[in-house]
Amino acid sequence: MIHSLGLDIGGANLKISYVSSDEKKIKYKKIITRYFPIWRRGKNRLLPTLRETLSYLPFKKYDIIAVTMTAELSDIYFDKKEGVNHILDTLVKIFPEDAIKVLNVRGELLPVDDARRKYIEVASANWYATGWFTSKLAKNAIIIDIGSTTTSIIVVHNGIVYAKGLNDLEKLRYGELVYTGALRTNLAAIVHEVPYKDEMIPISSEYFAQSADINLILGNISEEQYIVDTPDGRGTSYEECLARIARVICGDLNILTEEDIIEIAKYIYNQQVKQVIKGLERLIRNITFNIKEYKAYLAGIGGSFLGREALEKVGFKNIYELERYIGYDASAALPSYALAVMGIEYYKKGV
Amino acid sequence: MIHSLGLDIGGANLKISYVSSDEKKIKYKKIITRYFPIWRRGKNRLLPTLRETLSYLPFKKYDIIAVTMTAELSDIYFDKKEGVNHILDTLVKIFPEDAIKVLNVRGELLPVDDARRKYIEVASANWYATGWFTSKLAKNAIIIDIGSTTTSIIVVHNGIVYAKGLNDLEKLRYGELVYTGALRTNLAAIVHEVPYKDEMIPISSEYFAQSADINLILGNISEEQYIVDTPDGRGTSYEECLARIARVICGDLNILTEEDIIEIAKYIYNQQVKQVIKGLERLIRNITFNIKEYKAYLAGIGGSFLGREALEKVGFKNIYELERYIGYDASAALPSYALAVMGIEYYKKGV
Repeated sequence: MIHSLGLDIGGANLKISYVSSDEKKIKYKKIITRYFPIWRRGKNRLLPTLRETLSYLPFKKYDIIAVTMTAELSDIYFDKKEGVNHILDTLVKIFPEDAIKVLNVRGELLPVDDARRKYIEVASANWYATGWFTSKLAKNAIIIDIGSTTTSIIVVHNGIVYAKGLNDLEKLRYGELVYTGALRTNLAAIVHEVPYKDEMIPISSEYFAQSADINLILGNISEEQYIVDTPDGRGTSYEECLARIARVICGDLNILTEEDIIEIAKYIYNQQVKQVIKGLERLIRNITFNIKEYKAYLAGIGGSFLGREALEKVGFKNIYELERYIGYDASAALPSYALAVMGIEYYKKGV
Repeated sequence: MIHSLGLDIGGANLKISYVSSDEKKIKYKKIITRYFPIWRRGKNRLLPTLRETLSYLPFKKYDIIAVTMTAELSDIYFDKKEGVNHILDTLVKIFPEDAIKVLNVRGELLPVDDARRKYIEVASANWYATGWFTSKLAKNAIIIDIGSTTTSIIVVHNGIVYAKGLNDLEKLRYGELVYTGALRTNLAAIVHEVPYKDEMIPISSEYFAQSADINLILGNISEEQYIVDTPDGRGTSYEECLARIARVICGDLNILTEEDIIEIAKYIYNQQVKQVIKGLERLIRNITFNIKEYKAYLAGIGGSFLGREALEKVGFKNIYELERYIGYDASAALPSYALAVMGIEYYKKGV
């Protein structure tokens, strides 16, 4: 049996997937997503939080720990170099250094020393694991992974992960990364105005409400799926979400009706779908093959609604939810799960 | 001698103006602006912070304390009713209740009991004081007051404050309030994309940088004027502002050059000017007289750059900076200063 851990150290969430497998197939898996906004909790909390989260796993010994990260972009670090090094410093305090392998943007699993030297190519490489996993499902495919904060769009072409951008800046440029997510996106970063009483009203620029408020009101997510902090520190009930959205035009529940707020929520949701569509269009503009004929997969907490709507509107026809194959937990934490599986393949080849 | 205090309890700043005046004219004034983000410090810090700030004034006895507020909109309060009441609860612990008068949206100074009952009309009434002060300068005028967070546009017509909107929601609707400011505005709430290497790149939706970073880079404000918290908790040096702006497209100072970032800053600044212009156009659309011929005044920390550019582009010709008449401190804290002066007039009439 091979015991593999996949770690995705994100800026907002820690995602940990444990997979054990014999020579033929996966025998057991356990996935944990832990909300950990590193810029708020502080980088020194990373070590104890990781330790505590790992304690929830039923197994303590791993043959390989495959790691990817996006937390290095957080402004708790001055630059990516500081971020990558601090995250690796933390991991070597928990795991034997030899067992840690760090994913880079070409799909290689690097030893820690190498990863430190090549910090630019291990920064925000998590999308590669998602693409690699998708390539096991179809020779030609596209996958949209919509998490709490961001949307990744990855193409598989002739069995190979096909990416134009190799860092976040390039990915924004080529439509492979859209900085919009199902939970944490500030509504003021999605729209500048909203409908109210038959006209468009400019909105407040404060962080009064986020995409989770919209998605809860519209029934796209449940209260259990609202796993991030609320902007006002209040709860995640239907009424509290309504109140946050009302404040976006400086209103409250004494001034706006439920219907007013639902109309605003629907408008903002549609604009967020358009953000994903714009990303898809940007991506399609830069490739020559007819990707709309490819199989399209959905992952992440926002895949089944935001991702599906965007793909359908752009003209994709064969759309599949990854959840059906690997379960909701693995789909919602896809890069970490994909990486744990990748770790098993790597370990098999190595021995 | 009459001793008057004007208090503007904002969501991000406490502004306190002390004015003493004899029968004829103002003899002494002292203005204090104290950064106090109530949603971060907590509402229980309001009382000690106010007490401490007042201790910097050389005089301790006031005949009248004229009060206005916008902090009631902060999401530290569930709704405006809770906010207004908590702010008034705090003030009666410091001052004799009889001396406190609360401004409403019709320019009346209400006793505390009345203000509690009429909480909707004392909420965010600070613009009235600004308008009233402007009406002392010209019979027909417009004033743009651009603070750290918001832009107020107030019209004086035939000597009277002429406002279509009586609360923040209506003011957004009529262009009298634009939710953009010189220091605290999230850049992701101003633009969705920025220029980089001859094309437009979509940006991150995180709170990575704010308008103060842009304005410092472009020389519109000095480091001393950067009085608000930075998004990343780092300093306000030129280089630290550059780094924050770079992060908006997921870059850092190893990836982007100073020239790249200055180009981005200029673009975002121009888009912010456009936000103010849109507000002005919205306002002009709703009035029948030819306001472009009116005298135009600038106030607030952003008046002299953002406000001036917007007014000039819309076609105003007679533009004056209030700073020249009342000094920078009073202009930057205008509602509180105007209110202190209004308090003196009120007190004179009363006795």
